[in-house]
Amino acid sequence: MTTSSYKTIDELPTPSLILDLDKMNHNIKRLSDHIGGLGGKLRPHVKTHKSIEVARKVIEGGNVGGITVSTLHEADYFFENGITDIMYAVGIAPNKFAHVADLMAKGCDLKVVLDSQEMARQIAQEGEKRGIAYKVLIELDTDGHRSGACPESDELLEIARTLHNSKGCELMGLMTHAGESYNCRTPESLLAMSRQERDRTVNAAKRFAEAGLPCPIVSIGSTPTAFGIDDLEGVTEVRAGVYTFFDLVMSGVGVCSPDDIAISVLASVIGYQKEKSWAITDGGWMAMSRDRGTANQDVDYGYGMVVGKDGQRIGDLKVIQANQEHGVIGDPDHDLPYDDLPMGGMVRILPNHACATSAQYSKYYVVKGSDVIGEWDRINGW
Amino acid sequence: MTTSSYKTIDELPTPSLILDLDKMNHNIKRLSDHIGGLGGKLRPHVKTHKSIEVARKVIEGGNVGGITVSTLHEADYFFENGITDIMYAVGIAPNKFAHVADLMAKGCDLKVVLDSQEMARQIAQEGEKRGIAYKVLIELDTDGHRSGACPESDELLEIARTLHNSKGCELMGLMTHAGESYNCRTPESLLAMSRQERDRTVNAAKRFAEAGLPCPIVSIGSTPTAFGIDDLEGVTEVRAGVYTFFDLVMSGVGVCSPDDIAISVLASVIGYQKEKSWAITDGGWMAMSRDRGTANQDVDYGYGMVVGKDGQRIGDLKVIQANQEHGVIGDPDHDLPYDDLPMGGMVRILPNHACATSAQYSKYYVVKGSDVIGEWDRINGW
Repeated sequence: MTTSSYKTIDELPTPSLILDLDKMNHNIKRLSDHIGGLGGKLRPHVKTHKSIEVARKVIEGGNVGGITVSTLHEADYFFENGITDIMYAVGIAPNKFAHVADLMAKGCDLKVVLDSQEMARQIAQEGEKRGIAYKVLIELDTDGHRSGACPESDELLEIARTLHNSKGCELMGLMTHAGESYNCRTPESLLAMSRQERDRTVNAAKRFAEAGLPCPIVSIGSTPTAFGIDDLEGVTEVRAGVYTFFDLVMSGVGVCSPDDIAISVLASVIGYQKEKSWAITDGGWMAMSRDRGTANQDVDYGYGMVVGKDGQRIGDLKVIQANQEHGVIGDPDHDLPYDDLPMGGMVRILPNHACATSAQYSKYYVVKGSDVIGEWDRINGW
Repeated sequence: MTTSSYKTIDELPTPSLILDLDKMNHNIKRLSDHIGGLGGKLRPHVKTHKSIEVARKVIEGGNVGGITVSTLHEADYFFENGITDIMYAVGIAPNKFAHVADLMAKGCDLKVVLDSQEMARQIAQEGEKRGIAYKVLIELDTDGHRSGACPESDELLEIARTLHNSKGCELMGLMTHAGESYNCRTPESLLAMSRQERDRTVNAAKRFAEAGLPCPIVSIGSTPTAFGIDDLEGVTEVRAGVYTFFDLVMSGVGVCSPDDIAISVLASVIGYQKEKSWAITDGGWMAMSRDRGTANQDVDYGYGMVVGKDGQRIGDLKVIQANQEHGVIGDPDHDLPYDDLPMGGMVRILPNHACATSAQYSKYYVVKGSDVIGEWDRINGW
């Protein structure tokens, strides 16, 4: 951890991104204990934090085998920092073949994913041309959310055979992401979604076995289904990322409470519009991101829930609108408590979506209580 | 300009941010000609591009006196690159007083803004304590959009006197931002909004003169009103930023066409979901930003308008949904033209909001036609 020149939250610049170490460690332990208790392993997704320091805490938390990345820039960074077992979980494109080959040549155990015959043929040809075997998983669509081949389809086995029969590839198995779990609102619906994700993936792996195809990795996951699943038979690993920090969207799904959220944006009050009962801060959408993930949930937090600089709630304050570097704090049902929002004073804002908000920053100010104990860098971009 | 190792768009990685130099130069000339034709000066806002190379092109375009910034990090960067006349156009906060003083001590002609008696007293005291005179403008609320004191209020003159009567400050004048102009949809409403912004500001400056208060700077602006205004009598400068690149929101306001948009995101097709008529790309919301600024306009472009890698339109394609590193291309009214979206091929996506999309990147690939002629760095953060 880099030493910070700031000793307490009061001294920090605004806007800035605060990471509460105790809350993060609690979140890490919670999922590690749950998956470990089921006899499973995690392949944590680093796209939320993009920080080797956070990744090390997740690995220390236990039950971890390898990581998941969302960009090859993350793969470069985490590999340079000593992590070798990496899955790049976004469908591969031809203009990334050379980059993947380069990382493999350096010793990175990098796995890629795809979901079509056409891309399977392209990467197989590329591997044969280069004289290497790309490690490839096939992505399954287990919930109609986004990408993936149908787990019960003939096409799935055809893609698998294309990969397995080429010297340019090594068929590494199956992966899926139950993104639809973000729309669950009850423990019952989340359990059903978690089992659906697992069952359709494990059954596809059984089809591989029956067809004589290898399937060493059977990978499922999303933060909601990682907490929701109750049995991991047939699954080799679970992927999840946002649980390290949590956020208001996850609170709306029911897998955490706002008090568990480990990151917040520190902002200064720069003005009032008292006839509208508004306080204006320097925490706009550049500081929060444009993410409005709670807009379709039971509680819409606008651009974030506003709490005191000590982390304690102040009524039902939220950021009701945002411009690039201006945020507007309001409370739809009450007059603003101006004494809690003094001119030039500071507040903290809990984010809708930890991945999006963190990506607006290049570092975390790590705090314990009101003490700044250090700074952790993070990466962005591609 | 840094030389690029890439020669043509076909060679670029995805996602990446492309800047069309000819389109940008055309946009710069258009506003410079308009404001120059009215005998006015621009103080261009650099928050859209955050690039000294772009700023130099804007200055070369003519009729420019000084720049506007949205963060002190921008002030640091542009000052280090030789620009001294800078207005920081977000209400100042006490935890930025030292940073501002430091820039002034280095020779930066930095001006700050505020809109309350309380903040005026705080900065006056700070200036007196430090033995310096902060250069301060008072922000006016001319359209009910966000921040600012009422131009016709007694309070405005009280704030001005607090600043003028303190040795810790120098009263530099008045500024306003007609953010409500983004909601204009006709030339008539835009002209009315532009005149309202000008008239309320110029009248407030007359009140200063009558009260014996100095007002060397009378600053108005937003991209729509900068194009909309027809007479600048009494105004000393016009601020605008997004016009350098333009975007789909500005097209919806009617001040440009989609063909004028100078930036686009290059993305690769990584999969299909043919039963849904979807093509999946690696251009998700991290590549586009979460900005959905066209959602309330006449045409909602989702997360962006999809065009070919040559910049030519392909039907009515848009990014209909986005996850962190996945974008879904669809056409609500037609089947997808898969031949124009080959697996592994590339498309360009025009952004809703140039400021938000550009902020997801650390550099621009500058192109002329399909040739990459160089790379320009940009800054982010605070």
